[in-house]
Formats: sequence, structure tokens, C-alpha cells
Amino acid sequence: MFEFHLEGTTGPARAGTLTLPHGQVRTPAFMPVGTHAVVRGLSANDVRRTGAQIILGNTYHLHLRPGENVVQSMGGLHRFTTWDRPMLTDSGGFQVFSLERLRRIEEHGVEFQSHIDGTLRMLTPERATEIQWHLGADIAMAFDHVVPGQSSFELACEGMERTLRWLDRCKARHAELVGQRASGNAGRSQLHDDAAFPLPGFPAFPQTLWPIIQGGIHDELRIRSLEGTLERGPWTGIAIGGLSVGEAKPVMHHVVELLASRLPENVPRYLMGVGFPPDLLEGISRGIDLFDCVAATRNGRHGTAWLPTGRLNVRGSALKDSMAPLDPECDCETCTTYPRGYLRHLFVVEDILGLRLVSIHNIRFLVRLGEQARAHILNGTFDGWSREWLGRYYAGGN
Amino acid sequence: MFEFHLEGTTGPARAGTLTLPHGQVRTPAFMPVGTHAVVRGLSANDVRRTGAQIILGNTYHLHLRPGENVVQSMGGLHRFTTWDRPMLTDSGGFQVFSLERLRRIEEHGVEFQSHIDGTLRMLTPERATEIQWHLGADIAMAFDHVVPGQSSFELACEGMERTLRWLDRCKARHAELVGQRASGNAGRSQLHDDAAFPLPGFPAFPQTLWPIIQGGIHDELRIRSLEGTLERGPWTGIAIGGLSVGEAKPVMHHVVELLASRLPENVPRYLMGVGFPPDLLEGISRGIDLFDCVAATRNGRHGTAWLPTGRLNVRGSALKDSMAPLDPECDCETCTTYPRGYLRHLFVVEDILGLRLVSIHNIRFLVRLGEQARAHILNGTFDGWSREWLGRYYAGGN
Repeated sequence: MFEFHLEGTTGPARAGTLTLPHGQVRTPAFMPVGTHAVVRGLSANDVRRTGAQIILGNTYHLHLRPGENVVQSMGGLHRFTTWDRPMLTDSGGFQVFSLERLRRIEEHGVEFQSHIDGTLRMLTPERATEIQWHLGADIAMAFDHVVPGQSSFELACEGMERTLRWLDRCKARHAELVGQRASGNAGRSQLHDDAAFPLPGFPAFPQTLWPIIQGGIHDELRIRSLEGTLERGPWTGIAIGGLSVGEAKPVMHHVVELLASRLPENVPRYLMGVGFPPDLLEGISRGIDLFDCVAATRNGRHGTAWLPTGRLNVRGSALKDSMAPLDPECDCETCTTYPRGYLRHLFVVEDILGLRLVSIHNIRFLVRLGEQARAHILNGTFDGWSREWLGRYYAGGN
Repeated sequence: MFEFHLEGTTGPARAGTLTLPHGQVRTPAFMPVGTHAVVRGLSANDVRRTGAQIILGNTYHLHLRPGENVVQSMGGLHRFTTWDRPMLTDSGGFQVFSLERLRRIEEHGVEFQSHIDGTLRMLTPERATEIQWHLGADIAMAFDHVVPGQSSFELACEGMERTLRWLDRCKARHAELVGQRASGNAGRSQLHDDAAFPLPGFPAFPQTLWPIIQGGIHDELRIRSLEGTLERGPWTGIAIGGLSVGEAKPVMHHVVELLASRLPENVPRYLMGVGFPPDLLEGISRGIDLFDCVAATRNGRHGTAWLPTGRLNVRGSALKDSMAPLDPECDCETCTTYPRGYLRHLFVVEDILGLRLVSIHNIRFLVRLGEQARAHILNGTFDGWSREWLGRYYAGGN
């Protein structure tokens, strides 16, 4: 369980298979974001049909609504959402440090005001780990101290070092929870039985914990973060956080290259919050295996579709009476069913079906990009294909 | 084509089959409303999975957006929306007479301001017929003069008599259009070919025209409207309009009984704008075959689900951690997939998936009510079942 098997490489680009309690993930792969235990606007069936192998949930949002106790009492995130494939939960670090109502940061943890009802709440490494344990995803993330994108060396160093100290606490709490389950009578086969609810505190399936590398845009800090993280291992996966937060693309690429070349081969690498189409290919070509980003659904809701030739505004009047599919090369439900003219009409009359259909396409577009990259990596044709793909996308003027 | 075959009756209640160009409709049947060429928030596949056999579109809304020319140039409403089963379009009469910006009513037609861009537009019996011809549904409705629900004898009489005069003009224009197609080279087999677009002005499939009986709440006017309508026949279907617009339920039931007992047996009867669950059974028991109403989707959007025991507020905190299906007796996608606690969560976090899932349930609820009524009519058990069903529903306190 939680093994990662590397199946092929083309330069730094990698194709592998990650085995998780709810299934396998063929990498490289894009993970759609389901912040509130729902990939915005889409049913679990919609998401399954995009070919997505794993989706995200978010500790911060799910702690506030509906609360981890509700999710746990309903059998965990999988049964709550009816999503039966792998899931990962983010730790809430990124969210609480982005809050306007962040109140106090201490070594102990972070005090913040709920954006829902203004109540004061506390997240600590232990709490974040416990909440994720109750949510019951396949992968939990360590609680990290996130600093703004262009932070000074001093500030980035403080966040990075605290993230390492917090990692110790997350790891210890997670090990305790795993130990409690192992000594309990809540074995997996019993818990998987639909008739029997999991015991309180025991997720039905095993869960692993992944650390997050911080350090901003400072090479020295990134390497210290990496080394400190590896010293605290072994890990079944490692994430790179604090990127795609306003820094220039070449800076992001540099940090990814710096880390990927030093990361162990047999561990999947997850680049957090990255997932516009070209970013996916740029990341894959530098050795990243997993991505997540809300852009697919956010763009979908705003009527922006991703095509191999760049972005398309679905509201555009040129689409008015077009019988063409949104993307003639795409095999998603939207592109194989609806003409462009109808999709535009849905946005004009403001029917929510439009948001859903373009979101479905955008997610499928990224999922398929991962599938294509994987096939080309295994065939040894990744570099040429990737260069051509990016050239065509950028030539669209986007 | 357009034949109605009566297969069984229990007192006034009828079970039949209506044959239309895009398929058969087993009656009694509820028709979901797709005002803007979309059943609000639902994909064609969502609606197909509810078992709906026929849906509505609306002349007024589709004339404004995207315009009948756009729909026609894309091959008609069926190809535009990818809905491959029968469709009916309302004539726009009900909408223009409900407009605040109604400008002028003349014998010639109605002048109104678009609610979208304020432009002055004119609907006449001929225009309404032409627009529907371009939209290309299986059934077009005659353009009627609709008066407010509780109108005086004089006002209701004026609207009723004008509706009859306008029916002559709708019928004449429709016959012209049918004749033009018959003399053209646009036969059905050719038009059904995906490679060849229908010629301008010629819908790909035959279309029929149904009249609407008006007369408000006045028996004498309703009977004169019925007689005048029948004199102008034969018709392949007849609608009852101007009900469910504020009058008391017993008044509506009385008018339905008055008309149903005088309508020819071999013609389907369509009670326009009626479709809360008990209204469906009350109508069926009085001899109605077809219904339409936006309540299923409107209630769904507001989080109100219909159950056999009455209405349920899906936002209710009692549902918070419930693993029960929304309606344990229902076979819809929502009820067979998602727990109540998750549906409530979707409304709490305001994800549009919630609106869709409850709309799907409410539509399936009405479609299944039609299916159940039909089975009981054919078995001779309708009266007892219907009484019991209504008793249970009303006992829910709704």
C-alpha cells in the first residue's frame, strides 16, 4: 500500500503508478479540486467520466462546513461524496495563511476567524492531522506555515523552519492515530462492510501523510527544507508548496528543477496549486508527477474553455450558430454531445448547465494531457510532443 | 403520425399512447419545462434519465434568445439541444400577456418590449406559428389571448373570442407552411441525414398544431370556447389554458370536469401550467393526459424536494448527518446515489450540484407519478391508489 512504481522516464519526465487504498493513480496526473467535498458544480459521476483518478478535499473548508465529525459519522469523505476513487486532503495551511481574518500565528498553531460565522478557531499541526484522519482521505497533508509568494529570505526561512518543526508534530500525531487503529478491532475488511459503520476515530481505510517543502524563491531555503524533510522520512509522497503564488514562471521552473533533481526517485512528487495546461507540461518535463488547481473549474464557470490552440471565450458571438464541438479533438461528454452554439446560448441565458459543461471539458482536458504525457514518456516521444504541444497552445495567442 | 390511441380508462381517468415524429408518449405524462431550450440546470442526459418522454420549449424566450433563425440554422430545437425525444413549444401567448412591458393589444397581434434589451417586438398568430415552425418541435401551440385568472365575464369573453379568431389564423398559416414543405424537395428521409441541413423554413420533421381552450372561470365561455375549437378541427390534441393562475382548486377542478366530459375521447388533453404532485393526480382522475409546470425545477433550485409524504426542505438541519436517501421509494439518480446529509451540505455551501440533484428528483417524482397512474388505470386500481396516495401526501401537512 502507498507504493510508487516508476515505469518509465524521458529525461526528468516520469511515468509511474501510485497504489492507494481506493485504487491506483497512473502518473503524471491532474487532480481536480473538490474544496467543499464537491468538484464545483459537478457530480461524482461527471468527475469519474472525465477520467480523473484522484480528487482533493480541503481541511479548512470541511472543518467549517459540515465539520469533520459530520463527515466521519457518515463514514468518511468517500461515502459522504460517493467518490469511490482515491482522495487527498490539503491540511488547511494554505487557506488559513491566506485569510484576511488570520488572528495570531504562534509556534503552537494558528488562530483565525471562520469566514462563515466569525467564530474564533485554532488550527495546529495536531488538529489538522486529526481533522484529516476523521475525513478519511487516502492521503493527508502536513500542516505548513505558508508565507507570501515573494517573501524575503528571513520571512521565508521562518516559515520553512516552522513547517519542519510542525512536520514532526504532524508525523507524531498521525503515527498515534495509525497505532490506535492497529490496536483496535477496526480492521479494514470489517470496516468496508456497508452494514457496519466505522468506529468513531477510525477511518475505514489506511491513510498516509505527505510533507510539504517550503522555502519561497530562495534556493538555499528550498534545499534546507528538502533535506530536513527527507531526514524526517521515509515518505510515501512529497509535495512542493508555496509556488504559483505570484512569482515569475522561470522562477517557479527553477525551484522545481532544483528540487526534482534532489528528490528520491521512488517517491511521487506533487506540485501544489499548479494546473493551467502549459504549467502541467512544464512541470511534467521537470519531473513532477501530480498537480492540482482550481483553474479548470473556475475558468469553466466563467465560460473560458481550454483548447489545444489556447483559450476560447464560450460567450463569444462567433459561436452563436456554430454546430462544431467545443474542441474537435476532445472526447469529453461536452465535446461529444453539444454544439458550440448551444453552449454559448447556455451562458447567454445564464443556465448553470453551461458552467458544468465547460468545467467538465476543462477537467477532461487536463486529465487527458496527463494521459497523453504518460503515453509519450513511456514511448520515449515526450520531448518532441511536449514542445509541439506548447508551441501550438502559445501560438493561439494565450 | 400524431395519432392518439386510448388503451384503458378508469372512470374519467385515461391511459393512452400519443405517436409523435420523435417517438411515442405514454399518457398520462408530465412534461418538464425547458423554457430556454434547457430544463433549468439539467443536461439532456439528466432529463432522459428521469424517464421524461417529452419536454417543452418556449416561443417567447427562444425568439429573444438565441432567436428562431439561430435554432433553425442549427437544425432545429432537437439538434440544438441534443434532446432526441418529442418536444412541444408554447406559443408565447401566456408570456407576452404576463409581461409588464406589454405595450398594445390589437386584433392584429400584441406589441411588447423585450425584457432583455427593451426593443419593440410584435407577436401575431402568424408570427407565433412561423417561429414555432422554425424551432421545429413536434407540437406547436396556437397563439392565444390570455386574460388574468379571475377576469370578469366580459374580459374573459373578449379573450376567448379573440383566441378563436386567432386560432383560424394560426391554423391557416400552419397549413401554408405544411403545404410549402410538401411541395418542396425537403422530404423527411433527406432531412434526417446528418450531412444535409434542412432547407430554410422547412423543419426536418412534421409538426402538428394544437388549439388552446380559454374562457376563464365562466362555464358558458369555456363551453363556447370548446365548441368553437372543435368546429375548427379536427385536432391531434387540445389544450386547456388559463387555469392554475390564482383561482381556487375546486374552481379549476370544476372547469376541467366540465371540459373533459365534452372533449372527444380520441384526442389527448393537455392541462397547461399544472404540475404540483397532487394537481397531477387530481387532473388525471378528471381525464387529463398531459401536464407541464416549472414547479419541479423551481422547487428543486430552492431546496424543496417532493416526497410521497409531502414536501421536504433539503436545507433542514435534521438532515445534517443523515445517510438516508432523499426519498427511499424513489429510483432517480439522486435518491439511488447520494445521502441526505450530502445533499444538505451542497445547499449549505451553495454548490449548484445541489440544485441539479433535487431538480432531477422532483422531475422523476412527477414522471413516475404519471407512470404509476398509468399502470393503475390499466389495472383498474386507479381510484383506490389515487385516494391513498393523496391522503398520504396531504397527511404530511403540506
